[in-house]
Amino acid sequence: MPALANKIYFNYGGQGPLPTASLQAMVASWRRIQELGPFAETVFPYVEELVTSLRQALAALCGVPPQRLAFTENVTSGCVLPLWGLPWRAGDQLLIGDGEHPGVVATCHEIARRESLDVGTLPVRDCATAEQVLERLEEALQPRTRLVVLSHLLWTTGLAVPIPAVGQRLGQHANRPWLVVDGAQSAGSVPLEDAVAAADLYAFTGHKWLCGPEGLGAMALSRRLLDTGAPTMIGWRGLAEDPEHPLRLHGDARRYEIATSCYPLAAGLLQSLHSLAALGDPRQRLALIRSRSGHLWRGLRQLEGVETLLPEPPPAGLVSFRIQGHRSRQVVHTLAERGLVLRSFEPPDCVRACCHVTTLPTESGRLVSGIASLGTKSRSV
Amino acid sequence: MPALANKIYFNYGGQGPLPTASLQAMVASWRRIQELGPFAETVFPYVEELVTSLRQALAALCGVPPQRLAFTENVTSGCVLPLWGLPWRAGDQLLIGDGEHPGVVATCHEIARRESLDVGTLPVRDCATAEQVLERLEEALQPRTRLVVLSHLLWTTGLAVPIPAVGQRLGQHANRPWLVVDGAQSAGSVPLEDAVAAADLYAFTGHKWLCGPEGLGAMALSRRLLDTGAPTMIGWRGLAEDPEHPLRLHGDARRYEIATSCYPLAAGLLQSLHSLAALGDPRQRLALIRSRSGHLWRGLRQLEGVETLLPEPPPAGLVSFRIQGHRSRQVVHTLAERGLVLRSFEPPDCVRACCHVTTLPTESGRLVSGIASLGTKSRSV
Repeated sequence: MPALANKIYFNYGGQGPLPTASLQAMVASWRRIQELGPFAETVFPYVEELVTSLRQALAALCGVPPQRLAFTENVTSGCVLPLWGLPWRAGDQLLIGDGEHPGVVATCHEIARRESLDVGTLPVRDCATAEQVLERLEEALQPRTRLVVLSHLLWTTGLAVPIPAVGQRLGQHANRPWLVVDGAQSAGSVPLEDAVAAADLYAFTGHKWLCGPEGLGAMALSRRLLDTGAPTMIGWRGLAEDPEHPLRLHGDARRYEIATSCYPLAAGLLQSLHSLAALGDPRQRLALIRSRSGHLWRGLRQLEGVETLLPEPPPAGLVSFRIQGHRSRQVVHTLAERGLVLRSFEPPDCVRACCHVTTLPTESGRLVSGIASLGTKSRSV
Repeated sequence: MPALANKIYFNYGGQGPLPTASLQAMVASWRRIQELGPFAETVFPYVEELVTSLRQALAALCGVPPQRLAFTENVTSGCVLPLWGLPWRAGDQLLIGDGEHPGVVATCHEIARRESLDVGTLPVRDCATAEQVLERLEEALQPRTRLVVLSHLLWTTGLAVPIPAVGQRLGQHANRPWLVVDGAQSAGSVPLEDAVAAADLYAFTGHKWLCGPEGLGAMALSRRLLDTGAPTMIGWRGLAEDPEHPLRLHGDARRYEIATSCYPLAAGLLQSLHSLAALGDPRQRLALIRSRSGHLWRGLRQLEGVETLLPEPPPAGLVSFRIQGHRSRQVVHTLAERGLVLRSFEPPDCVRACCHVTTLPTESGRLVSGIASLGTKSRSV
């Protein structure tokens, strides 16, 4: 992967490196489309097969039938587009985790403004365990709660939110609130089936931990969301192509797809999925990721003045930490000059390092030395 | 252009052929992103410059400042996304041309359903002149009309809708209805400035007449739409990155952009714009397109049993026609087998051939012969 050749890369959670084979697959797809079409009887079956193959692959990853999977351009669109078509009642409460992405939060506030809903905050950013998340949920739920929005893995601290347990709790609520899950950090790093089964809407992108191209994601929709919601953006991809009823929607999740997207990206993401599969199934890959992130987490814990945000080895690839007396933003900048690529957050003020299956123990070692050289020192053992 | 090497291509209005240089520009952009980033301090200025360059180029094409241009994934999204955030009042009427794309029509019906609006149809599909369109508009406008949706060039018949005159008429209406223009067939074939200046929302895509990659379009927004409307899908690209107010939107059209898109496509579209510019400015290219389509139109008019939908040579590149005793769908299929790539419509039942600057007179000649061989014959002159 060219992105990994000239730097030590810890930003898989921002964007994953694109394997050369995936770029080649996209170029081959564009060439094929041009050769066949680009808009011709001969090209449509090719594009259909490409899109169907990817839909099947991503649906399998989610453990749902392909009929419940729709493509999106990015994870934000996936998280919020279907919410606009749900049957809201004035006074309903949207309960949003305080570790959610600003785009998702902002759209929920706009839905609340237009539909006269309330927005509540579920404080999970400082939770260190799954049990704490469930306690906080218990305290925050209200009789009028109608939607809960949480990430599967918090992009800030890397905490694994116990989505199946959250789903179970919401199932006992008289209102049966919808559960929307942002899978930006989980798809490609942890197995998804159990969380997807608990969620009404599980959105993710191909360009982070799945190492696909930017601009292509997907969402898995529950049967009840498909039955109850109405699409808000409608285009030819969502229409059933019924000459008698030109505005009839597809009966399945395709009704949430809009119009022309960049299809060669599907060839790139398919190739990235193949490349990942060659390294093991999702459970085997998670074990590898955890051994990488655990190695880094332990290294960091040995430095005096360094505090990891999670008290236990990370459940997946995200390792967030603070360095006493150092501003996280400045740490990231200084490390970047040494070829170590990380990111900072604020709030919570921290540095985040992502470890994927491609992260080498020597790279984690280089990061720990880099941080040590900032003026921290090893704890006396 | 590889797409033109092995067929005679008349479907620019469906998707334009991608120049090899544009594919190369995308590959180079992906390689650069991987080399710099893909998510790193060094890559952000590169992506920002790429996106800014394209924004400036497309804004110049529209004759608006870059602050009024937002990117979209496709033309349907551009046409309808901002409509969701307009201040509707129950009972307002949406007046939609009967030659509009089903996706745009379906979304308008859904807006009408949720906001208790009325949908009216403006019959323009059988208009042969701009004057007729204005007469029909006069008949269809009602006191409660609040939005008019029309294409700049009708994708079915190829008629040029007199958008500046429509805009002027709506300016005299007590309600000052919003004017939404679908520029799917116009961007890249006719100069846009006058129509954009008259419209509140002018949406187009890069993958048709501009010969860019699929999956990247844009919309130009009027000052009043920017002032009055509220974004419906909000993501990090629409947010102003203000640490004090994390949900504050950009003041300009970027507030309508959502989240991560495929940035290398911008490099491809920029290259396609350069390739087109090398053939002349938009007015010179339109003259070339009209000479191509006029040549085909005249050739078809000489065949007995062939009826062109427009009684005058086409205003741009779309040449639609019917063949007596032949089903349009079958005609397209038969011609495809001979390497002539066209499309059919229903309704109105017709065949559409698109002529671009790249269409050769010999290719139009081959199409006319192909149609003649279906059993039509030359009219006696």
